[in-house]
Amino acid sequence: MDEYLRRLRDGTLKLYALEKELAPADAVSIRRKFIEEETGVPLDRIGDCTISLDAVVKKNCENMIGTIQVPLGVAGPVRIKGEYADGTMYLPLATTEGALIASVNRGCSLITAAGGADVRILKDGMTRAPVFAADSIVHAKAVCDWIHAHEGEIRAEAESTTRFGKLTGIEMTTAGTSVFVRLSFVTGDAMGMNMVTIASAKAADLISRETGARLIALSGNWCTDKKPAAVNVVMGRGKTVSAGVLLSQELISKVLKTDAASLLEVNTRKNLVGSARAGSFGFNAHAANIIAAMFIACGQDPAHVVEGSLCITTVDPAHEGVYVSVTLPALPIGTVGGGTSVETQAECLRMLGVSGSGDPPGSHARKLAEIVASGVLAGELSLLGALAAQHLARAHSTLGR
Amino acid sequence: MDEYLRRLRDGTLKLYALEKELAPADAVSIRRKFIEEETGVPLDRIGDCTISLDAVVKKNCENMIGTIQVPLGVAGPVRIKGEYADGTMYLPLATTEGALIASVNRGCSLITAAGGADVRILKDGMTRAPVFAADSIVHAKAVCDWIHAHEGEIRAEAESTTRFGKLTGIEMTTAGTSVFVRLSFVTGDAMGMNMVTIASAKAADLISRETGARLIALSGNWCTDKKPAAVNVVMGRGKTVSAGVLLSQELISKVLKTDAASLLEVNTRKNLVGSARAGSFGFNAHAANIIAAMFIACGQDPAHVVEGSLCITTVDPAHEGVYVSVTLPALPIGTVGGGTSVETQAECLRMLGVSGSGDPPGSHARKLAEIVASGVLAGELSLLGALAAQHLARAHSTLGR
Amino acid sequence: MDEYLRRLRDGTLKLYALEKELAPADAVSIRRKFIEEETGVPLDRIGDCTISLDAVVKKNCENMIGTIQVPLGVAGPVRIKGEYADGTMYLPLATTEGALIASVNRGCSLITAAGGADVRILKDGMTRAPVFAADSIVHAKAVCDWIHAHEGEIRAEAESTTRFGKLTGIEMTTAGTSVFVRLSFVTGDAMGMNMVTIASAKAADLISRETGARLIALSGNWCTDKKPAAVNVVMGRGKTVSAGVLLSQELISKVLKTDAASLLEVNTRKNLVGSARAGSFGFNAHAANIIAAMFIACGQDPAHVVEGSLCITTVDPAHEGVYVSVTLPALPIGTVGGGTSVETQAECLRMLGVSGSGDPPGSHARKLAEIVASGVLAGELSLLGALAAQHLARAHSTLGR
Amino acid sequence: MDEYLRRLRDGTLKLYALEKELAPADAVSIRRKFIEEETGVPLDRIGDCTISLDAVVKKNCENMIGTIQVPLGVAGPVRIKGEYADGTMYLPLATTEGALIASVNRGCSLITAAGGADVRILKDGMTRAPVFAADSIVHAKAVCDWIHAHEGEIRAEAESTTRFGKLTGIEMTTAGTSVFVRLSFVTGDAMGMNMVTIASAKAADLISRETGARLIALSGNWCTDKKPAAVNVVMGRGKTVSAGVLLSQELISKVLKTDAASLLEVNTRKNLVGSARAGSFGFNAHAANIIAAMFIACGQDPAHVVEGSLCITTVDPAHEGVYVSVTLPALPIGTVGGGTSVETQAECLRMLGVSGSGDPPGSHARKLAEIVASGVLAGELSLLGALAAQHLARAHSTLGR
Repeated sequence: MDEYLRRLRDGTLKLYALEKELAPADAVSIRRKFIEEETGVPLDRIGDCTISLDAVVKKNCENMIGTIQVPLGVAGPVRIKGEYADGTMYLPLATTEGALIASVNRGCSLITAAGGADVRILKDGMTRAPVFAADSIVHAKAVCDWIHAHEGEIRAEAESTTRFGKLTGIEMTTAGTSVFVRLSFVTGDAMGMNMVTIASAKAADLISRETGARLIALSGNWCTDKKPAAVNVVMGRGKTVSAGVLLSQELISKVLKTDAASLLEVNTRKNLVGSARAGSFGFNAHAANIIAAMFIACGQDPAHVVEGSLCITTVDPAHEGVYVSVTLPALPIGTVGGGTSVETQAECLRMLGVSGSGDPPGSHARKLAEIVASGVLAGELSLLGALAAQHLARAHSTLGR
Repeated sequence: MDEYLRRLRDGTLKLYALEKELAPADAVSIRRKFIEEETGVPLDRIGDCTISLDAVVKKNCENMIGTIQVPLGVAGPVRIKGEYADGTMYLPLATTEGALIASVNRGCSLITAAGGADVRILKDGMTRAPVFAADSIVHAKAVCDWIHAHEGEIRAEAESTTRFGKLTGIEMTTAGTSVFVRLSFVTGDAMGMNMVTIASAKAADLISRETGARLIALSGNWCTDKKPAAVNVVMGRGKTVSAGVLLSQELISKVLKTDAASLLEVNTRKNLVGSARAGSFGFNAHAANIIAAMFIACGQDPAHVVEGSLCITTVDPAHEGVYVSVTLPALPIGTVGGGTSVETQAECLRMLGVSGSGDPPGSHARKLAEIVASGVLAGELSLLGALAAQHLARAHSTLGR
Repeated sequence: MDEYLRRLRDGTLKLYALEKELAPADAVSIRRKFIEEETGVPLDRIGDCTISLDAVVKKNCENMIGTIQVPLGVAGPVRIKGEYADGTMYLPLATTEGALIASVNRGCSLITAAGGADVRILKDGMTRAPVFAADSIVHAKAVCDWIHAHEGEIRAEAESTTRFGKLTGIEMTTAGTSVFVRLSFVTGDAMGMNMVTIASAKAADLISRETGARLIALSGNWCTDKKPAAVNVVMGRGKTVSAGVLLSQELISKVLKTDAASLLEVNTRKNLVGSARAGSFGFNAHAANIIAAMFIACGQDPAHVVEGSLCITTVDPAHEGVYVSVTLPALPIGTVGGGTSVETQAECLRMLGVSGSGDPPGSHARKLAEIVASGVLAGELSLLGALAAQHLARAHSTLGR
Repeated sequence: MDEYLRRLRDGTLKLYALEKELAPADAVSIRRKFIEEETGVPLDRIGDCTISLDAVVKKNCENMIGTIQVPLGVAGPVRIKGEYADGTMYLPLATTEGALIASVNRGCSLITAAGGADVRILKDGMTRAPVFAADSIVHAKAVCDWIHAHEGEIRAEAESTTRFGKLTGIEMTTAGTSVFVRLSFVTGDAMGMNMVTIASAKAADLISRETGARLIALSGNWCTDKKPAAVNVVMGRGKTVSAGVLLSQELISKVLKTDAASLLEVNTRKNLVGSARAGSFGFNAHAANIIAAMFIACGQDPAHVVEGSLCITTVDPAHEGVYVSVTLPALPIGTVGGGTSVETQAECLRMLGVSGSGDPPGSHARKLAEIVASGVLAGELSLLGALAAQHLARAHSTLGR
């Protein structure tokens, strides 16, 4: 070990190269030791990792030194009535935010008492939008025209790179000489970002070759990935999914200690009007909290919480109560690839019956999307209720830090 | 154990009540056992958690059943020249996204080779914005007028709830009869959401009592927390922080295998023009990736990645090179509270020299903000470079899944 | 006359009913007289209107009392190289903003000196988006599914109401139980709002009847008409049109008294970065000024300046100069209907060779769109140049008030 | 005349130079004649202008050839209960959009029957935001710090240029090395754009001189003028004004032929939810229509319709009815300068009792803002009612073209 540390110190061995000479566990251990020396800080708990590292160091994490342990709790059971998720489930949430799971749990009780949450996927497609530079706006139009006329060839080229990905749409826009081409794919059970990036690269090369437009970047930010953008609100990205539930006055009163009119007023003044005046793309109370916690639990990419936060929550007056819904226009989600095979994460997916590829392909990812949306609905119900009952601050005084 | 499981099954014991009868480790263990039975799925790895649970079950996670292990790697060393962070550091990143740490690492090398990253905090203030209902727009104006005339009283009331929090600003807006009052506080080393919620509750009660406006919700979404909103771009929230670095043509060519003009063109067409056409509030390449990975490593709230994604990345032509910067208008961050005392997370904070309260108060949180901004700069540099060199797809084919 | 005034005063005759009993000129005159009496203000100049009133009082203006005279100037000649507008033209601008026409005029000179403006229409479609209420999110999905499966019927129904309108696209989105259906039409030489409203009403009735969804409003604000909305940036509305021109260093120096690098820097820091930080959907300097002035001159709906302001202006470095472009994603425009047949406005349209229906239909409206885009380009060039040369304030001191 | 035409044709006389040799009426006439020759189109009606030209050719319109006549109608009377506008008025609207005035008129009747519209101005300040370039983000922070420390000097410098303008606020933001400084002024009865541009130029010179930051543009688009931007929603610009009215079930039924619940549902699903899903900054039905028509009538800058369209319309359930309001966050408006002294426009201002400077200064501009807001309220009420009653398409079939 000392020899490796010496070489790391004198720069003859690079930190990232340890796995080339050592088994993963040893590489991780020596690297951590080195960082401990450099920083003078013991990293024992980080080192106490119990997952198997072989795949992880290759696929998920370079320069690994251990793991972060994020507390995992459950909310539920919650009754879900989706097209893919149909039954009663416990939701895994990895979080350090006190009161969050308790809140979602209350929402789950309410949903279940109300007979379950309706859930539906309305749209499905992962996107990439390369940006090209044309010579002039005349050239830019010619590029668009060429693409319109050769969609078949572009599809064939893109799909040649993937077994599961199917190109389902091409949208274009220009800004002067910049041409943005948003390619949309269904991607089976994978969240699909890598798949569509590779497929888009092939398509982009074809377009560039045939039109003379220069490819500037494989992602031109009109995708839009991990930035909060109206294009995703308007057109959707990943799964577009809604969940809803009808609540009677009795249930609202019993579980939320408030009434239908108050829920409606809170949702209107806060989620609709307040968001409008904030220039917000998210018209919800705290959808990101639930998405973040379930994404970390389930091996999803937590940077995609950004897209998840685009949720809109609505409260409709209904006969003797309200119908409350959440709509997530852009939920990137998958059950293969990414962090889904890290052992703790894989266990969460198995808890939900969605580990690995579904049969038919895509059904696992869709089921997971329905479950997450139900979780978001539970979270919104509980927080709206708490706000309505002006309990928020009190809850924080008790549970908070 | 069987007795507890029986009681959980027949409903005479609630899942969340286990800690009332059992030590944390036992409660977590029995709860996990129960979920295993209910779902038929073994959760061994989730159960292999090695952090101490006592504080966690009380403060961070209800209904706990174990932990999710998120692979942790390091990028660096990176030279940082901030007002609070000044030195060379390794950045901890918890992620399952292959290639991310390698990418940030490359950016760190570049920054260090260029002499280090400038970093500055431009604004600091955590906000809460209760919404009130007035009877009419005449009443709404009267409420605003009252608040303008009684800022001192409101401050006193709000600050009576906190040792560290100081009310530094009150902004108001109305939409018809809805009055939004955005209270801004400096919050020491805490991220501060709970602190300002409690303080705002007190202020809101005063306002409601004196003006007759009904308090509808302690958060009226004009704060804006965990939703992507222009109000945070315009006014800032949490830390507003910038990092920048001057790169010579030589360095760009050597490390990024591209040139200044290409970097500039990628940034303009993708991050500026592409984001503009997407109706985006984020004008960056992938700031959310770095923020998510560092936030999970450092015990921050990962739902705040939403705000982090509001970053704008700029590339200025400079004498013989470019000056590249990132500006994060709304980075909520802290070194006490939240997940900062979970053991693995606390080790990361110690690695960075920012665990717990700083001296003077607030200096740790500010140092951490500067470090995260430097990490974002590293990530942007590397991805912009990769795009410029059209290497993205190739990298994914090799490293991806 | 006195008798009419008496009846107006005692309420036995309604102001709007005067045309039922009198010739237009008399009705307008008596109504003005009545308003003069009521307000005690002589309205002689308003009364000095010289356009013929017969059609106007029926089609353009209820309760008419005269006309507002807006000063009309010309800018140009400007060389335009469009697909519909090809030649050298004078642009009519109706404005009271001193310095505006002088500014556009300078831009026209510059364009002409540079050999003319490229102009292209990239997309064409006027939209209406009724909103329906479903009973639940399950019902909402069923409504969308029904629409997908019956596009042919919907098209037939919609097109039954119009000779020129052709339904070219149906986009859908939902927010909980609200279903928005954006119908896009080509509308010949008409701007088309009324045409598509009527056609959408028919389509909406069919959808409502067949799916049981309640029609809430014929316009559900997802159209989006006369509000600044990202949906129009992303998808376009009316004409999507670009204009561009290549400027040499020499021309920039001679006409604008600045240089390429300064133009580029002003555009980046102001139009791109500044707009980004403002949370803006308009990335231009003052496109709305030119659109407003040309719209009033040409009988267009001035409330549509809102959509026009969504323009993005780009400056690309080019060999020995810059390529400057404007892209207007949503320009609603027409040469028949609206104010196009009011005599002074009709003269402006004739000046441009676009009065009435084109041959083929639609060519006049497209030509006008190309001309307006060229005018916007001229305006942007001039103002960017003035800012670059820091002449703005000086110009205002001299010409302003 | 022929001699002038000959010189114009051979280029020895410039179009804009005619006023140097001729009286305004002659210059306009010869210029029109020249354009008629160039285009081969008679421009008689444009030439039939009856306003006096002396001031107009100097202050409002270069290269003038005549006037556009925009039909002017009135809506009302409407009862307004503002702090500046208190009484019953007729609203002048210049428009060619059939049915618009009839619609506003209906809203006026409704408001008056309900006892009048509450109106209040909540904020008042015209803004300009120069953009500066710093050398680095460290320099950028130093610039901000300098400005914070020298607000008094900046104020003195800015106010030295104006009799009426008072600097009331300085806001700053940065994006990397770009520093935006938003200066806010009260501007008396002037809309104030020119005044604040001149004052900002002086302030900008001081800042540049003292900090070494380069002034890039006097307007850095963070103002934001004539582009739809969240910064104006969040902070206001020009007048921020609200109008509201309480409607009983009886009135809603009698005048609008609908009921309170329908009004509420239309407003929620269309103006709030629909706008949210469109990524809109305007949460209203057609505020821009009324603003455009009143702005043209009253000599305001019609490009400012962009800001006007940021209106939010709310409908609150109220005891036995609804309270409907509009809030316009950014209404730039004035009664001196701009087009206010063109004779037909001046007559409209006199009709409203707001021509020229008010006593105290600013009171006329504020009164006009209150009147416009009342007009917008009337327009919203009427269109919401029409949509609720599904009458829109029918109205268009009858009145439309």
